[in-house]
Amino acid sequence: MSYTALDCDKYALTMMQGFWKQGRHQERVVCDAFFRKNPFQNGYTVFAGLTSIIDYLKNLRVDEESLAFLSQDPLFEQAFIEDLKILRFTGTVYAAREGDLIFPNETVLRIETTMWEALLIEAQLLLLFNSQSLFATKASRMVQAAKGKPIIELGKRRAQGNDASIDGARAAYLAGLAGTSNMHAGQKYGIPTVGTMAHFWIQTHDTELEAFRQYAALYGNASIFLVDTYDTLRSGVPHAIRVAKEMEQRGEKLKGIRLDSGDIAYLSKMARKMLDEASLPYVQIVASNDLDETIMADLQFQGALVDVWGVGTKLITAYEQPALGGVYKIVAREKNDFFLPVIKISENPEKIPNPGIKQVYRIVDQETGKFKGDLITLEHECLEVTQPLHMVHPTHTYLQKTVHSYTLYPLLTPVIEQGEVVMDLPSLEESRQFHQQQLDRLWPEYKRRTNPEVYPVSLSNELYDLKKQLLLEKGRQV
Amino acid sequence: MSYTALDCDKYALTMMQGFWKQGRHQERVVCDAFFRKNPFQNGYTVFAGLTSIIDYLKNLRVDEESLAFLSQDPLFEQAFIEDLKILRFTGTVYAAREGDLIFPNETVLRIETTMWEALLIEAQLLLLFNSQSLFATKASRMVQAAKGKPIIELGKRRAQGNDASIDGARAAYLAGLAGTSNMHAGQKYGIPTVGTMAHFWIQTHDTELEAFRQYAALYGNASIFLVDTYDTLRSGVPHAIRVAKEMEQRGEKLKGIRLDSGDIAYLSKMARKMLDEASLPYVQIVASNDLDETIMADLQFQGALVDVWGVGTKLITAYEQPALGGVYKIVAREKNDFFLPVIKISENPEKIPNPGIKQVYRIVDQETGKFKGDLITLEHECLEVTQPLHMVHPTHTYLQKTVHSYTLYPLLTPVIEQGEVVMDLPSLEESRQFHQQQLDRLWPEYKRRTNPEVYPVSLSNELYDLKKQLLLEKGRQV
Repeated sequence: MSYTALDCDKYALTMMQGFWKQGRHQERVVCDAFFRKNPFQNGYTVFAGLTSIIDYLKNLRVDEESLAFLSQDPLFEQAFIEDLKILRFTGTVYAAREGDLIFPNETVLRIETTMWEALLIEAQLLLLFNSQSLFATKASRMVQAAKGKPIIELGKRRAQGNDASIDGARAAYLAGLAGTSNMHAGQKYGIPTVGTMAHFWIQTHDTELEAFRQYAALYGNASIFLVDTYDTLRSGVPHAIRVAKEMEQRGEKLKGIRLDSGDIAYLSKMARKMLDEASLPYVQIVASNDLDETIMADLQFQGALVDVWGVGTKLITAYEQPALGGVYKIVAREKNDFFLPVIKISENPEKIPNPGIKQVYRIVDQETGKFKGDLITLEHECLEVTQPLHMVHPTHTYLQKTVHSYTLYPLLTPVIEQGEVVMDLPSLEESRQFHQQQLDRLWPEYKRRTNPEVYPVSLSNELYDLKKQLLLEKGRQV
Repeated sequence: MSYTALDCDKYALTMMQGFWKQGRHQERVVCDAFFRKNPFQNGYTVFAGLTSIIDYLKNLRVDEESLAFLSQDPLFEQAFIEDLKILRFTGTVYAAREGDLIFPNETVLRIETTMWEALLIEAQLLLLFNSQSLFATKASRMVQAAKGKPIIELGKRRAQGNDASIDGARAAYLAGLAGTSNMHAGQKYGIPTVGTMAHFWIQTHDTELEAFRQYAALYGNASIFLVDTYDTLRSGVPHAIRVAKEMEQRGEKLKGIRLDSGDIAYLSKMARKMLDEASLPYVQIVASNDLDETIMADLQFQGALVDVWGVGTKLITAYEQPALGGVYKIVAREKNDFFLPVIKISENPEKIPNPGIKQVYRIVDQETGKFKGDLITLEHECLEVTQPLHMVHPTHTYLQKTVHSYTLYPLLTPVIEQGEVVMDLPSLEESRQFHQQQLDRLWPEYKRRTNPEVYPVSLSNELYDLKKQLLLEKGRQV
C-alpha cells in the first residue's frame, strides 16, 4: 500500500490554507491520538498500526498529480498549492509499542509538529491506528478463546478492502494467530501462509475419493481434506480415512480434515471418534464456519474436538464492532514560544480530552510483575517511585486507590524526532512476542471475554488540576 | 490501488499446482458469484465493484517479486512457478451493471475460463464485489432515509483500510450521496469533495468568534461554522449569527452551521429558530454524529430540521453488518468438449447453488414499467414473452405466481470476452443515474427500511428440473 498526501479529509486542506493566509501555518501544536472505549466490551485494546503510520509519515509529500488536482478546485489559491510542494513531516512522534496493551483515554500517539502537518495527517493516522488496533484486539480475544490451539486467518474474501485484508492479517498475526491464507500478506509481512483445498477441488474430480487420492499423491503429509462437500460423516470422513490408510501404506501421514459447515460440535466429536477407531489419532480436525471467540468458547463447552481453528469474516471485519472510535485532538499550542494547554468542552464529561503534553506510565507491582494500572501525567512531572501512588478514576473521581511497592515505565517512547525515524523498529515477530509478554502481565480479571474488570487509569494530581482549571476558565468565557 | 496476483488465498495456488500436475489446468469451468441474503435486512442489494474487478482482471499477471516469493515455499515446484509467468486472464465475464439492484441467489458475475484462472481470481473478485456492494447498499438505504436532502460522506478516519475509505466513498456516491470529505476519492473518481473546519480551527484561535470571523474572511459564501466546540446554543450559534450578520454587510451569505454532538433533534430545532429570528433563513444546518438511516429517520420523526446530513463510521464500515456474504461457486465444468453442470450438496437447502450456465432476466410490467421479479434460467433457454410466465420461489416452492403482459431483459451482459474488455464502461455519473432509475422502478414495498417485501426471484422450469435431477444423482452416490 502506498499512501498519498491526499489521503486526508478536505477540511484539513481548507484549514491549512486558512492558517497559511494568516501566516500561522508553521506554529507548533501537540496532538494526541487516543480512544474512549475498548471495542467488543473487552478489558484492553491491542495497539497496532504504528509501522504503517511511520511509513506514511516518512513518505509524506504532495505529488504532482495531487497538486494538479488541487489546482482545479476554486477554493484553493495557486500560491498555497505551490507552497505545499515543500511540505514534509518534520515533527516528533511519541507512541506506544505495537502489540502493547492500551486503555481508554490514554495518549497512544503524541505528535508535536506544525499546524500544517498536524492537520494534514489526522485522518490517515487515525485510519491506520483505528483499523489495525481493532483487528489486533479482535484477534487477541480469539487467541485467548482458543486456549493454546492455533488459529488461522482465512477472511480475505470478506474484507472491506485490499489493505484491510493484508493489514488485518498482519494485525491478527501480531496478536497471536498462527498464519493466514492471504498470500499478499505472507509476502509483504513474512507471515506463515496456509491453504489446501476448496470444494472446487472435489467438484472437479469425478468422485470425492478420487479428489482426496489425487491431492494426497501431490501433497503427501501436507494434505488436509475438506470433508463436507457431499455428506461429512457418510462420505467425507470415510473417504478421508480410506485415503489416510492408503497413505500409511506409503509411509505418509494425513495431516488433517477440515469441517466447513454444519454442527461443528457434533461433527468434530463424531469425526474424531471415526478417526480414532481407524487408528488415525494423529489426523487433526480443522474447523471453520463463521467462527468468533464466543462460538469457539461455546463449542469447547459442548465438547467439540477441534485442533486448529480457522476464522474469516468475524475477524477480518471485526464483525461485532467494526470500528474503533479513535480520535485525534489538539492538546497544546504554541504561543509566544510556550506551549499552552488546550481543552475542548463537551456536554459529555467523558468526551473532554486531557489537556497538555502528556506521558503515560505503566505501574508494575514489584512482587508479582503484574500491571497495577496506568498513570497519565504531564510530560514534565517527575515521579518518585519511593512514595505511595494515589490513583483517581479520570471521570468517576470517587473511585480511588493507593499503590505501594511498584515500579513504572513510560508507555510513550520517541519514534520520530524532527522528521527522522529514531526508533529501531521491532520485527513483526518481536512485536508478536511483546504482545504475549504484556498479556501475561495483565491479571486474568481484565482479560476475560465478558464483563472484564475495568483496568485502572488515573490522572496525576497536576494533570487533574490543570484540566479542572481550564474547564473553569472556558466555562466562564462561554 | 493496484492489485497483484498474490491477492489470493493460498489454496488457490495449491489447487492450481494440483491441476497443473494433472495436466488439467487449461480445462474450462464456469463459476458464479452471488450472495444469499440482502444485508441490513434490506429488500435489495446494490451491485458495485465491477470497475475494480475489470481493472484487476485486465492487469492480472504474476510479477517477479511474487514468483520469487513462491519459490521460497517448498510446497511449490519451480516448473509450476515458471509456468505462472505467462498466466493472464483469458476468460469471459458476464455481469450485472454497477448500480443495478440485485437479489439473493441470482448470478451477479459469471466467469467462464480455465481452472487456473478461475481459482486464482476467486478471493479478490469476491472481496471487491462484497465490500463495494455492501457500502453501496448501506448508502442507498441512507439516501432513502434522507428524503431528498443531500448526504455527505465523512468516514475516512474510521474506515477499515485505505481502499475501503476510497472505494467506499465511490460506492456511496454511486448510490446517491452528494460528496465526500476524502480527497483521494475525489481525485481518483471525480466525486465532489466537501470540507470546512474542525474543532482544531476554533481551538487555535483565541475565541470562537474570532475563529468564525477569520474563516468567513477567507472563504466567504463557502463558510460552514462548526458550532459545538464550547456550547452550541449559548456560544456557537450566537457567534455564527453575529458573523453571518457581519457578512451580510459585505454582501456575503453564510452557507451553514454544523452540529457535531449533542441532541441533534433539539439543537437543530433551536438553532433553526435562532437563525430564522435573526433573519438568516438561508443558513443551512448540517448534522453529523454517528448517524445512520435509522437515526436519520427517527430525527425527522422528532421534527429535526436538518438540511444536509453528514455520515461517517456507520456508512464506511457498514456498521450494522460489516460483511456481505457473497460466494463464488463452480457451476459447470468442461468434460469431453461439453460443459457439465456441477452441484454442491449442503445440509441447508438454501445453500445449494443453482447448477449450470445461467442468465438472469428482469421481468418488467408493461403498464407500469415497474419490476415484477427476476427469472433465473439456463443460458440456452428461449423465453416467449407472449406466454404467461409462471414463477416459483426457488426454495419455498409452494410460493408461486403467474405474470401476464410483461417484457424482460437480461441482467448479465458481456464485460470481458476471451480476456478483452468488450463493455463500454459507464462513467460513475452514469452508473449513479442508472441506480436511481432502477430504484424508481422498484415498488416501494421492496424499498422500505424495515420489513420489506421479498422481491420474487424464480427459477425456470428447466433449471429447476436440472437442479432436482443433479441432487438426486448426488444423493444416490453418497
